Amino acid sequence: MKKNIAIVIHGGAGEDSEFIRQHLKEYETSLQEIITSGYNVLNKGGTAVDAVETAVTMMEDNPLFNAGRGAALNAKGEIEMCSSIMSGKTLESGAVAILKHVKNPVSLARAIMEKTKHCYLGGPGALNYAEEIELPLKPESYFITEHQYEEFEKEKEKKRESITKMTKEDMHEKMHGTVGAVALDNNGHIAAATSTGGSVNCKEGRIGDSSMIGIGTYADDATCAVSGTGDGEYLIRGVTAYSVSAVMKFGKLSLAEACDYIVHTENKNIKGDMGIITLNAKGEIAIAFNTERMHRAWIKEGEQMQIKIYK
Amino acid sequence: MKKNIAIVIHGGAGEDSEFIRQHLKEYETSLQEIITSGYNVLNKGGTAVDAVETAVTMMEDNPLFNAGRGAALNAKGEIEMCSSIMSGKTLESGAVAILKHVKNPVSLARAIMEKTKHCYLGGPGALNYAEEIELPLKPESYFITEHQYEEFEKEKEKKRESITKMTKEDMHEKMHGTVGAVALDNNGHIAAATSTGGSVNCKEGRIGDSSMIGIGTYADDATCAVSGTGDGEYLIRGVTAYSVSAVMKFGKLSLAEACDYIVHTENKNIKGDMGIITLNAKGEIAIAFNTERMHRAWIKEGEQMQIKIYK
Repeated sequence: MKKNIAIVIHGGAGEDSEFIRQHLKEYETSLQEIITSGYNVLNKGGTAVDAVETAVTMMEDNPLFNAGRGAALNAKGEIEMCSSIMSGKTLESGAVAILKHVKNPVSLARAIMEKTKHCYLGGPGALNYAEEIELPLKPESYFITEHQYEEFEKEKEKKRESITKMTKEDMHEKMHGTVGAVALDNNGHIAAATSTGGSVNCKEGRIGDSSMIGIGTYADDATCAVSGTGDGEYLIRGVTAYSVSAVMKFGKLSLAEACDYIVHTENKNIKGDMGIITLNAKGEIAIAFNTERMHRAWIKEGEQMQIKIYK
Repeated sequence: MKKNIAIVIHGGAGEDSEFIRQHLKEYETSLQEIITSGYNVLNKGGTAVDAVETAVTMMEDNPLFNAGRGAALNAKGEIEMCSSIMSGKTLESGAVAILKHVKNPVSLARAIMEKTKHCYLGGPGALNYAEEIELPLKPESYFITEHQYEEFEKEKEKKRESITKMTKEDMHEKMHGTVGAVALDNNGHIAAATSTGGSVNCKEGRIGDSSMIGIGTYADDATCAVSGTGDGEYLIRGVTAYSVSAVMKFGKLSLAEACDYIVHTENKNIKGDMGIITLNAKGEIAIAFNTERMHRAWIKEGEQMQIKIYK
């Protein structure tokens, strides 16, 4: 019997860059490995939650992506990571914010969802819980790649040249490197997960869209699973991930219509850089972004694997 | 000319308690003082953002409410506060999570909205920013009331008696004491703000609905302003505050219909304790809750002030 399984991943949306052009082959190879692994989880009977955790974990471990190893440095030169995960079957979710040392923030988010009465832990409390349940921890140096170190120095130099403090306009300069995944398992359940290293030179303690259920991540078997990326501060205005679900539920739009409407029409007034990957329990997939590039890949049972970076 | 101004405040929704019955008069007097002050801000030409900040600040300063002074203690006996604010005019927002020492978390949330490129700061980074902009700080003892100290000891005792670790069921025992306000100013703009001391005996680092835009707080001039309270972990599932706006925008429901639908129909599947206060740019007010009591008060130009605690 044909399985109805599908998975979509993204590695961030934003402007093109020298770094991306130089590492195009590595990005493509990585996306292929990761989407294949996520798909294999589903193919062996794993749940949608298992599949999105596997895919996001691999992107966190891969230094090319701004999540886990390869995370951006904040204005103090520190790593602070955010992640979230949601089950479309139960509407339960888990999230972590301003997290240090935990190798895979998405696995901590999942543990919070499944093992605690809470949905969201941040700061030292989140790290203490990771220690309590014995998740792998790493020293700060593990997370800091040469590329992110250089990005940090470049931003610091720009700031020194400028006489003003950080302004709202500065946010457009950053590299958007959030990663995420959405999946459908063979039991008809969907899930979404997102993870980020934040934005380079952001204020200490900054929380963006990636740890916020409804903003960066949402999943409901009745509508869709969504993982978003882009200008976190703009995604917050439109409650982006849940708004795709809401316009399907309350506005009766199809998945493809909803995805397109939120990014290209609803977002016109919001004006933020944005990309979303979505799928539903029927196995339909829709992706939309308003940026130059969005690292993305998807596989659907019976169709060929797709790997794309530009439009 | 008649002004079109209105303000609604809440001091949490949940089960009735001995403490509430003993302090009924003080609660009513406090609600009356706070709603009057918020209304006066609007009456003198202040913005909706000014009015909700004023009202929430007063509830944070009042030890009867679980926000600012009077905050609940987490499982380590510490104070960790959350707050958020949103302007319906601009869709800009500010929020703080797991915050210590800041006398008025809502004022820090407003400063983040108006003075930084970010929307959301948490932990030590949020506290450092409060110091940088010279907001009033207080020692931990300022926040801890005798009542919350006793609640903490009671919960600890319960835990010692129990052989199991904290479970999902425990969350129903907590006192829901979030505070919030929504307001309409004479220029036709609306705003919402929410603040909380968290839930007694929660894990260190726990973040609930109150600092999450879309969950505990949302405002859009085109639809409505919402502040929510209740089981934070359940509000997250339904993206409660924004869902009221979404069902108006995409489902074409009126404010009263939307408010009722989200709390009593949509929430049936979610099963959480919940209360929301809402208003729109026309000056319509709607309040819904599924709990025994919700501390609330409202004034609308030309109508009598209302102060209620039970149904």
